[in-house]
Amino acid sequence: MPEKEIKLTRGVPPTESFPIHRLADCATTALEQFGPEVLQYGPAGGFRPLQEMLAAQAGVSPDRVIIGQGSLLLQDFLARLMLHPGDLAFVENPTYDRTILSLRRPGSTVEGIPMEPDGMAVDVLEARLRGGARPVLLYSIPDFQNPTGSVLSEEKRRRVVELAETYNFWVVEDVPYRQLRYRGTDVPSFFDLAPQRTLQMSSFSKLIGPGLRVGYLILPDALAKRFLDFVEEAYICPTYLVQAMVYDFARRGWLKENIGFLKSLYPPRLEAVLGALDEHFCELGSWIRPEGGFFIGLTLHRPVTQPELGRLARQSGLWILDGRDFHTDGSGGSFIRLPFTALSPDDLREGIARLAKVVRQAS
Amino acid sequence: MPEKEIKLTRGVPPTESFPIHRLADCATTALEQFGPEVLQYGPAGGFRPLQEMLAAQAGVSPDRVIIGQGSLLLQDFLARLMLHPGDLAFVENPTYDRTILSLRRPGSTVEGIPMEPDGMAVDVLEARLRGGARPVLLYSIPDFQNPTGSVLSEEKRRRVVELAETYNFWVVEDVPYRQLRYRGTDVPSFFDLAPQRTLQMSSFSKLIGPGLRVGYLILPDALAKRFLDFVEEAYICPTYLVQAMVYDFARRGWLKENIGFLKSLYPPRLEAVLGALDEHFCELGSWIRPEGGFFIGLTLHRPVTQPELGRLARQSGLWILDGRDFHTDGSGGSFIRLPFTALSPDDLREGIARLAKVVRQAS
Repeated sequence: MPEKEIKLTRGVPPTESFPIHRLADCATTALEQFGPEVLQYGPAGGFRPLQEMLAAQAGVSPDRVIIGQGSLLLQDFLARLMLHPGDLAFVENPTYDRTILSLRRPGSTVEGIPMEPDGMAVDVLEARLRGGARPVLLYSIPDFQNPTGSVLSEEKRRRVVELAETYNFWVVEDVPYRQLRYRGTDVPSFFDLAPQRTLQMSSFSKLIGPGLRVGYLILPDALAKRFLDFVEEAYICPTYLVQAMVYDFARRGWLKENIGFLKSLYPPRLEAVLGALDEHFCELGSWIRPEGGFFIGLTLHRPVTQPELGRLARQSGLWILDGRDFHTDGSGGSFIRLPFTALSPDDLREGIARLAKVVRQAS
Repeated sequence: MPEKEIKLTRGVPPTESFPIHRLADCATTALEQFGPEVLQYGPAGGFRPLQEMLAAQAGVSPDRVIIGQGSLLLQDFLARLMLHPGDLAFVENPTYDRTILSLRRPGSTVEGIPMEPDGMAVDVLEARLRGGARPVLLYSIPDFQNPTGSVLSEEKRRRVVELAETYNFWVVEDVPYRQLRYRGTDVPSFFDLAPQRTLQMSSFSKLIGPGLRVGYLILPDALAKRFLDFVEEAYICPTYLVQAMVYDFARRGWLKENIGFLKSLYPPRLEAVLGALDEHFCELGSWIRPEGGFFIGLTLHRPVTQPELGRLARQSGLWILDGRDFHTDGSGGSFIRLPFTALSPDDLREGIARLAKVVRQAS
């Protein structure tokens, strides 16, 4: 009998986390209360009441908030608007694989800053800048980073902001996991530290459901109008209905409840992986112990040939991604991303046990 | 007392045409029946049952159908994928203003083919091709064209297809108004005539509601996979919920009913404008009598200075767009687009009467 398939591939919420019936209520309310607006063409920045809610939370004018069709498309727009052929963008190395593709698409160069347990190596960033590198932007996932799980320390954030001021680049901070902290305390965001130097993007994909495609961007005044014009030219306006549903979901208090539920659902899964790593990987690799989010990044002590590792894993019913996809420079042969939210603790433990066998085989 | 404002600007459906309560029913059904799929990440091509429904209607494999966030964004993707700096794209002149912007964005050249009462001047197209022009694509709105209202004759469609085969370019046909025919009979579409040479795009914006942002593209086999990969890279997947709602709306028979309703709502509006044009514009301009769609294109016998015309119009509470925006070459000084769907027959008659006064003032 073939073993049960275990997919340690995508960082997605589990089906059982979707508040389906509440969202059906919100859809009805959104249509009955805002039908004429949500079904018509309208402002490119998104459904106004949600824009105002997010703006109030951030303490900015609503015109600085753009709600779009998921934050990846906003990232694509951002890259097209801000980067030109030959331009330089810095990212963390490793980082979210799709970001590398988005930022490269305009013909720009994407360079990675190595990761340390407390986030990107700011010394390396500083040395590159002193050496003459002039990036247009630095993209960071400071909280529970995808794919490593690390949090960028406050001290490093402050240094990054100083460097951004000195060398005049934008900080794009992507914070989809920020509200999913299971232990410890929040660190000030880049937006908190430098609101006119930061483009903060986030989304409701990890807090309600990815299929809604509701992501948003809080922009500095200097960029807001240009960005909005670009969005309007690209697609006129987003799907308001899902934004109105998110608005209704939040104002009923259900968003807060849902985040509370996720913060009870995920920690046992994180602990299951950490326990299994302690059991099986002490001699094989190292990892940090994330305080939130979706991912643990595992670095093997000895590099393996990744396509071979993936093939071996598949033979034992285990799916993993190629660690090199998260890297800008072809490195990552010894890196494996472990998403822990979509599987049960038992499946996660079983997956890590299988992975250990496969790694021993491949070493 | 200032006169009532009359906006002859955007071609949008009127609020009273939106089937709000039925859509609320569909949202509930979509979430209850397909909740786990519509709230999760998934295939880039769209909600599978709707993809299959559209594919069955077109008689193609579902993999040739991509349902996206409105057809304008699909057009933007199409331009990025198919056009490069220096490439040539042909459009009708005048055409949909946003298309001109989309197709130019990759750094390509957009050239207009003049319009005649039965659609684009194919003789001019042929002469340009014989003279050495090598377009990547020709974009056409063959049915009830935006902004002229004309239908491209069958004979001309057949000639265009032959030219496309001979000179090896793609035909992009945009048919959002095709199902809104109020008189006469359908002409075969480009897709009917040459399904592997045509990219057919359409949307539910004019049939249900624009705010849903459900547009789609039927692609030749040669382009389908590449396009799908591009879409996935750009935004992972679209908002499935609205696509599932459209699917449910259609399978309940409500789409057919809604189209029937629109085909009773719009003809009196079209007749109101045509009657008012007959009354006020016989000496001032010419126009065709559209058999469907949203627009009548008015061409004045004497060119006017458009910004001046717009300013004068605003003084009498009338909003019109600058006719030059629909043209590729700065012409259009004597052109005015008249959308007739969003206003009542009385307001339309009043608007045309005011427009006549303003045109006489400006001439």
